[in-house]
Amino acid sequence: MPQGQPTVIPDDGLTTRQRRNRALVMVHTGVGKGKSTAAFGMALRAWNQGWPIGVFQFVKSAKWRVGEENALKALGETGKGGTVTWNKMGEGWSWIQREVAEGEQSHEDKAREGWEQVKRDLAAEKYRFYVLDEFAYLLHWGWIDTKEVVEVLRDRPGQQHVVITGRNAPQELLDFADLVTDMSKVKHPMDAGQKGQRGIEW
Amino acid sequence: MPQGQPTVIPDDGLTTRQRRNRALVMVHTGVGKGKSTAAFGMALRAWNQGWPIGVFQFVKSAKWRVGEENALKALGETGKGGTVTWNKMGEGWSWIQREVAEGEQSHEDKAREGWEQVKRDLAAEKYRFYVLDEFAYLLHWGWIDTKEVVEVLRDRPGQQHVVITGRNAPQELLDFADLVTDMSKVKHPMDAGQKGQRGIEW
Repeated sequence: MPQGQPTVIPDDGLTTRQRRNRALVMVHTGVGKGKSTAAFGMALRAWNQGWPIGVFQFVKSAKWRVGEENALKALGETGKGGTVTWNKMGEGWSWIQREVAEGEQSHEDKAREGWEQVKRDLAAEKYRFYVLDEFAYLLHWGWIDTKEVVEVLRDRPGQQHVVITGRNAPQELLDFADLVTDMSKVKHPMDAGQKGQRGIEW
Repeated sequence: MPQGQPTVIPDDGLTTRQRRNRALVMVHTGVGKGKSTAAFGMALRAWNQGWPIGVFQFVKSAKWRVGEENALKALGETGKGGTVTWNKMGEGWSWIQREVAEGEQSHEDKAREGWEQVKRDLAAEKYRFYVLDEFAYLLHWGWIDTKEVVEVLRDRPGQQHVVITGRNAPQELLDFADLVTDMSKVKHPMDAGQKGQRGIEW
């Protein structure tokens, strides 16, 4: 819970207002739950500001995120807040499981396709709030170069907030990010033999 | 990210289906961001299931959660998913700051009033998904007895999921909860002298 007052006044030549409105890169990493859920929760605030929202879903299966997808799309359709564009990287695109018949290279290609789309949208300032869901995996696996990602994010024009989720976010990304939260698992129902259930896990 | 398979098959006399659908008590604690945001993100899934959602907001100020409140209320009004009832414990009710003119006892009374309402709603099975936002503070401060809370949650009827957020959740609550995530702060913009901004912090 932020205390409302910064602990340091930086010597960066910016006014408080400029510094306040600086677009942020945020990373939710760690092995616990809530990384993506918190990102989608943040999207509620962006929606309330009327900001165009772009979700880029790098997910395990089509079932995942169905609740968030339906809800955020429904919100976008109300016309009372921001628009919501849901970019799903291929239906059933299950490269995280690494179980599909296609070769590894194909998964990497698709991952990079998604990243290329993100780059185009950032350059065009298409959205004001981006959720790159599970994107950290791609960096961890080396499928996308973290250095390039940091450069693209650093040089992005305008006022574009970006939230990146996923385990094992590379240190180089954490060093660059404005806000990093590590979601740690303390206890999970699956540890006690309980499987995931609708309304909770999806 | 759950792996889809429990690591233990418990000897609890329940079928897999019964165990799967057991209502959960979830706690988001820790000093990092995302505790409440992830709870509101989970509410998107509950909404998509058509579940009645009850939010009990124990907040610092009226500005906090305005984005989530507007968005979740707008979702409820679409009629495409669950209903959303937003229980705000007194407009401007700022007991967390402890800065109001009223005495400490008054704050405690209001906190307990909120808890009494939660108890009534649980007994009546009014909602299927509860967000008790910042509720952990009340327990940490001893304003509400953690033992009583655990008993009420343990004995709640039907299929009612409860998410409790806030720093310093007592160990007794963590021991009882089905799912606990600790949000750890790794880096926050305020550390670098940046104040909170609209669309991000509220």
